[in-house]
Amino acid sequence: MAKDNLTAILYGINDIRLEQTPIEEPAEDEVLLQMGCVGICGSDVHYLVNGRIGDFVVREPMIIGHESSGVVVKLGKNVKNLKVGDRVAIEPGVSCRMCKFCKGGRYNLCKEMVFCATPPVHGSLRRFYKHAADFCFKLPDNVTLAEGALLEPLSVGVHACKRANIGIGSKVLILGAGPIGLVSLLVAKAMGASKVVIMVTERSALDLSQNRLDLAKKLGADAILLTTKEDKESKTAEKVIELLGEEPDATIDACGAQSMIRLAILVTKSGGVAVLVGMGAPEVQIPLMNALVREVDIRGVFRYANDYGDALDLLTSKKIDVKPLITHNYKLEETVQAFETSKSGQDNVVKVMIHCN
Amino acid sequence: MAKDNLTAILYGINDIRLEQTPIEEPAEDEVLLQMGCVGICGSDVHYLVNGRIGDFVVREPMIIGHESSGVVVKLGKNVKNLKVGDRVAIEPGVSCRMCKFCKGGRYNLCKEMVFCATPPVHGSLRRFYKHAADFCFKLPDNVTLAEGALLEPLSVGVHACKRANIGIGSKVLILGAGPIGLVSLLVAKAMGASKVVIMVTERSALDLSQNRLDLAKKLGADAILLTTKEDKESKTAEKVIELLGEEPDATIDACGAQSMIRLAILVTKSGGVAVLVGMGAPEVQIPLMNALVREVDIRGVFRYANDYGDALDLLTSKKIDVKPLITHNYKLEETVQAFETSKSGQDNVVKVMIHCN
Amino acid sequence: MAKDNLTAILYGINDIRLEQTPIEEPAEDEVLLQMGCVGICGSDVHYLVNGRIGDFVVREPMIIGHESSGVVVKLGKNVKNLKVGDRVAIEPGVSCRMCKFCKGGRYNLCKEMVFCATPPVHGSLRRFYKHAADFCFKLPDNVTLAEGALLEPLSVGVHACKRANIGIGSKVLILGAGPIGLVSLLVAKAMGASKVVIMVTERSALDLSQNRLDLAKKLGADAILLTTKEDKESKTAEKVIELLGEEPDATIDACGAQSMIRLAILVTKSGGVAVLVGMGAPEVQIPLMNALVREVDIRGVFRYANDYGDALDLLTSKKIDVKPLITHNYKLEETVQAFETSKSGQDNVVKVMIHCN
Amino acid sequence: MAKDNLTAILYGINDIRLEQTPIEEPAEDEVLLQMGCVGICGSDVHYLVNGRIGDFVVREPMIIGHESSGVVVKLGKNVKNLKVGDRVAIEPGVSCRMCKFCKGGRYNLCKEMVFCATPPVHGSLRRFYKHAADFCFKLPDNVTLAEGALLEPLSVGVHACKRANIGIGSKVLILGAGPIGLVSLLVAKAMGASKVVIMVTERSALDLSQNRLDLAKKLGADAILLTTKEDKESKTAEKVIELLGEEPDATIDACGAQSMIRLAILVTKSGGVAVLVGMGAPEVQIPLMNALVREVDIRGVFRYANDYGDALDLLTSKKIDVKPLITHNYKLEETVQAFETSKSGQDNVVKVMIHCN
Repeated sequence: MAKDNLTAILYGINDIRLEQTPIEEPAEDEVLLQMGCVGICGSDVHYLVNGRIGDFVVREPMIIGHESSGVVVKLGKNVKNLKVGDRVAIEPGVSCRMCKFCKGGRYNLCKEMVFCATPPVHGSLRRFYKHAADFCFKLPDNVTLAEGALLEPLSVGVHACKRANIGIGSKVLILGAGPIGLVSLLVAKAMGASKVVIMVTERSALDLSQNRLDLAKKLGADAILLTTKEDKESKTAEKVIELLGEEPDATIDACGAQSMIRLAILVTKSGGVAVLVGMGAPEVQIPLMNALVREVDIRGVFRYANDYGDALDLLTSKKIDVKPLITHNYKLEETVQAFETSKSGQDNVVKVMIHCN
Repeated sequence: MAKDNLTAILYGINDIRLEQTPIEEPAEDEVLLQMGCVGICGSDVHYLVNGRIGDFVVREPMIIGHESSGVVVKLGKNVKNLKVGDRVAIEPGVSCRMCKFCKGGRYNLCKEMVFCATPPVHGSLRRFYKHAADFCFKLPDNVTLAEGALLEPLSVGVHACKRANIGIGSKVLILGAGPIGLVSLLVAKAMGASKVVIMVTERSALDLSQNRLDLAKKLGADAILLTTKEDKESKTAEKVIELLGEEPDATIDACGAQSMIRLAILVTKSGGVAVLVGMGAPEVQIPLMNALVREVDIRGVFRYANDYGDALDLLTSKKIDVKPLITHNYKLEETVQAFETSKSGQDNVVKVMIHCN
Repeated sequence: MAKDNLTAILYGINDIRLEQTPIEEPAEDEVLLQMGCVGICGSDVHYLVNGRIGDFVVREPMIIGHESSGVVVKLGKNVKNLKVGDRVAIEPGVSCRMCKFCKGGRYNLCKEMVFCATPPVHGSLRRFYKHAADFCFKLPDNVTLAEGALLEPLSVGVHACKRANIGIGSKVLILGAGPIGLVSLLVAKAMGASKVVIMVTERSALDLSQNRLDLAKKLGADAILLTTKEDKESKTAEKVIELLGEEPDATIDACGAQSMIRLAILVTKSGGVAVLVGMGAPEVQIPLMNALVREVDIRGVFRYANDYGDALDLLTSKKIDVKPLITHNYKLEETVQAFETSKSGQDNVVKVMIHCN
Repeated sequence: MAKDNLTAILYGINDIRLEQTPIEEPAEDEVLLQMGCVGICGSDVHYLVNGRIGDFVVREPMIIGHESSGVVVKLGKNVKNLKVGDRVAIEPGVSCRMCKFCKGGRYNLCKEMVFCATPPVHGSLRRFYKHAADFCFKLPDNVTLAEGALLEPLSVGVHACKRANIGIGSKVLILGAGPIGLVSLLVAKAMGASKVVIMVTERSALDLSQNRLDLAKKLGADAILLTTKEDKESKTAEKVIELLGEEPDATIDACGAQSMIRLAILVTKSGGVAVLVGMGAPEVQIPLMNALVREVDIRGVFRYANDYGDALDLLTSKKIDVKPLITHNYKLEETVQAFETSKSGQDNVVKVMIHCN
């Protein structure tokens, strides 16, 4: 086996370094993977820029990366579901498999979760990485390693759309056109949503919002809406309703801004669901009573559980195409530059993909 | 038929008058009822004191009363489910039966709802009152007319507990020990909840909170908790968890105060449900992100739909006893005094019942 | 208004006659419709050939037809959801709107259901017909009256696929390639099923099965399977699993034959659902224990409830195209011949459509 | 540690022997238990009498017993949820924790399930036995080891009642008054069922049915019904409806006889659920069409998943009392006699409990 195990390590704020680390030995239920692709997620950039997300603080140098795929090069002795040479997508969180959440089908809530690149757990941006075999999903020939890495954000979209009860006939509003907003759009359409409006609030003169909305349109949005911070929420709600023909049955917020959460509550149809995926401030001021008396349910989305398989099926069956989300490609050696691009938000960046080998 | 149709009319703020009104003729799908009991609800008192609840404003004199029961004295020509002499509980909201909400099983969200004593619709606090026959529920011999009137708040409790997914094994926190908090307690236990803690925040030195908690205890609460406004929410959450042995699977807020909504979010178990029944301020500041990343769902309760039958079954089968909730009884002629008692909150008042005939 | 109201009346076995009948006056919640299209359903043919379906017997001459669409020409005085000139699809069953089933969202189970062309209720195959306005669905400009008539079988497919819990990632087996099998295929794909196999059992040398399977393929089936009556069920199950890559999560039987019900039970994945839409013999012999110990749920489909709107959305949003199902077109005057064609099963007949005006 | 490890081994048909076996060493996620109680299940007797159940054949000597409880005497090195001295109930099936069923919350369907005393897996009827720690449930002080062993059949009842959607207002019919029928009765009442009828068909003059029905009455059945094999199913259905006041919303069959399955289908309310727990013949002849057109869902019950905790809560909270089910007690040394009693069905036997230490 190759000795080269170049690894991207986050040492602190704005300090990613590429260094050699030992190749790990897979435990009995694990596989060793020659890494394929690792996408850069907003949370990765957040750790880079701020050194923390909420209570998760990078105190020790941490290997970054969690949206990833690879090729099996070695099997732990109990592994039966994979063989050497299999190309796999990696579900980055390994749960305890024993608690009530794990046994009850909601392992994303497991308190013993070990999740790639969430401090203090190391991530997967290296030449070689080992992972629990049951959290690796074999890719068929018609799905690339880059698509495999995109299963991670796609699974968030799947989880969000399931939580939103989307089905045929659904009218859906999606707030935000970043990677999560866009995959939610793709999944909502695949689930049969009859109309999806995607909305972005322009933040500045140099904003890329229109580019992203154009991409949303290309990906199948029935209508797009660009608002400004000055727009009144009642006015914006009216525009959404006009575009959808009625109030949305489900609104998926992929931003986390207070203004978006407020809109989600106000505009969603009575008896509908406001799904909030976006991370934002710990405290918000919202017109909660409006949701309560109209029985608009408010549901969060924390990663995913039992969604990777469905996400993969969407790619395998060619129901959706996630490739247009990849706007930039880098080699592992170019990791610092890749993060720079992702951080900049310039040049129409949506998803930056790093190729590890 | 008697000509006497003494009727309680709300003319304006703090102005209820008893006057004669014409006895109405039932339409073809309606029945005329000789009224039995009418309970006074917090919303009735709210209209009396403030002349409005949110956008619902008492602009014209309005007959008050909506928690009621009666005896069928005349049938509309199409009525088949009832006969003269039947004692019935009256579900006070009559929906359009034709819209998507009505056909879909959530008629409480019907936009054409005609609901007793919600302006500008007249209520039922009179000697005689007519109502849609399909919204009247025949009482068996072992259920009194006073209990029949209590089906209204009880149905709110049923709806809240269903929305809270309560079942065997549930650990439940109920915030507030007014009528809705207490009926929610009764229903939660009847649904199999293994432990219910009921909590009240003391507002003043003269507060009746302890009396209500004692009643809660008598009605089956496994533990009660009296807090003060000065208690820190983290401290209160700890106390709740200590009393329940773990975090609540479901929290039902029957207060509406921002502090209670905050607690419901913070203390509920990951993957659990915070059901908010209480009416409060239109805007609140809450730690929403905490709920979202733990997938604690937030659900409102607006009245009830398809719950009256289940509520009645609880009484018929003697699974629960709502009679201890009735602390005061008055005749129709004493309506003003009855409202005075209800408004005062003194003398351990929980539910004030008016007997119409 | 035109006086011509040519009407197709079933007088008895193999005895349909075209006669003039009076144009009816719409009641206050009804509309009068100038009929557009009426499709011929298997049940219509069954009444024609046998004079009965189970306990429903044609004892008096009965106007036939229930898959239909039309144009509003007159409004009952309470009608607000439609206006004269609106083109509508007609949901043919009008429920009581007052019973537990109606209020609970399952009005298809209403015991007071009045359903077109189910004895003794008259159907809609005439020039003019009146119907409850809330069971008429306004067609947008991009949906034709013929498609509107097809909403009826399409709604059965929608109901079946909802009952089958179909979503993204579902592997689905559909048994039978008649109109219901084919619309179930279309709906399953629209709901995100990742793979659908459609299977037909050849009954004779002159069988049309292959033609229908070819159509299924054209409509999006991932694989088709033609079996013979001699094939062993275990062998057939193996073939299905090979084609799907795994056991089906859901099997929808649109045949009703005992052999198909048996297959549905045996082949469906543990924890999956066997949805049985097809009408067959009252008594069957089945390997029930196999389903029970693997928790394969068995669910029937009786018409539809709250599905017309979703079915219409599928057409409006161009998610599916039902037009290829219409293989033959006739004028109202040619009704006898239209039924002859439908009955014959020849000439690749799938759906026969009668144009009323 | 004691060297005595007396063990009950099934050598073949009607051949149980007590022998010493080595005390096993717990693996890292296991605990060693000094066994408390082991109840005898119908399946144990079935293996004793027939040497097999369906495809599960006793080919090698197998230690019997799976309804059991014990005291922790040694911890595997990774065990954190238990400590030495803890009294626990043992959930006898250990699933793989890695497959789709396990991760999806339905681990009872896991194909790698290792289940006590299901050939070729050894059971727990011995002095000492080791088990996966996460499938052991700590008993509080107010629950005895005998009750702990009864959690096993109780969990079947819990699973059945959940599958039956039982809640407040439910009218329930239970077929059979053996241990599973009786625990289903207890659980149904605890879940809020407003009326439960339990029915038994007398098989012979010496039948014990009446005794069991008397016990059912004592345990809370609202009505009991004793039928004979000669009774017509339509007649029996009428009697059930008369006793319940309406058709059952849910029927739970705990017999498995074809006649009971037929009744469950015919008598259950439209839109209701027939849950079939009882094991019977592989093939049955049933009036399936009746269920399908009324959308009566047919659901099997295979053991339990995520139900032990809820079952334990029912005991801890004193919502139900399972002790009356224990009619006979034996020491481990008297195992042969204990099985003899269980097999005989005489002497009002319901549940035979073996005390291991």
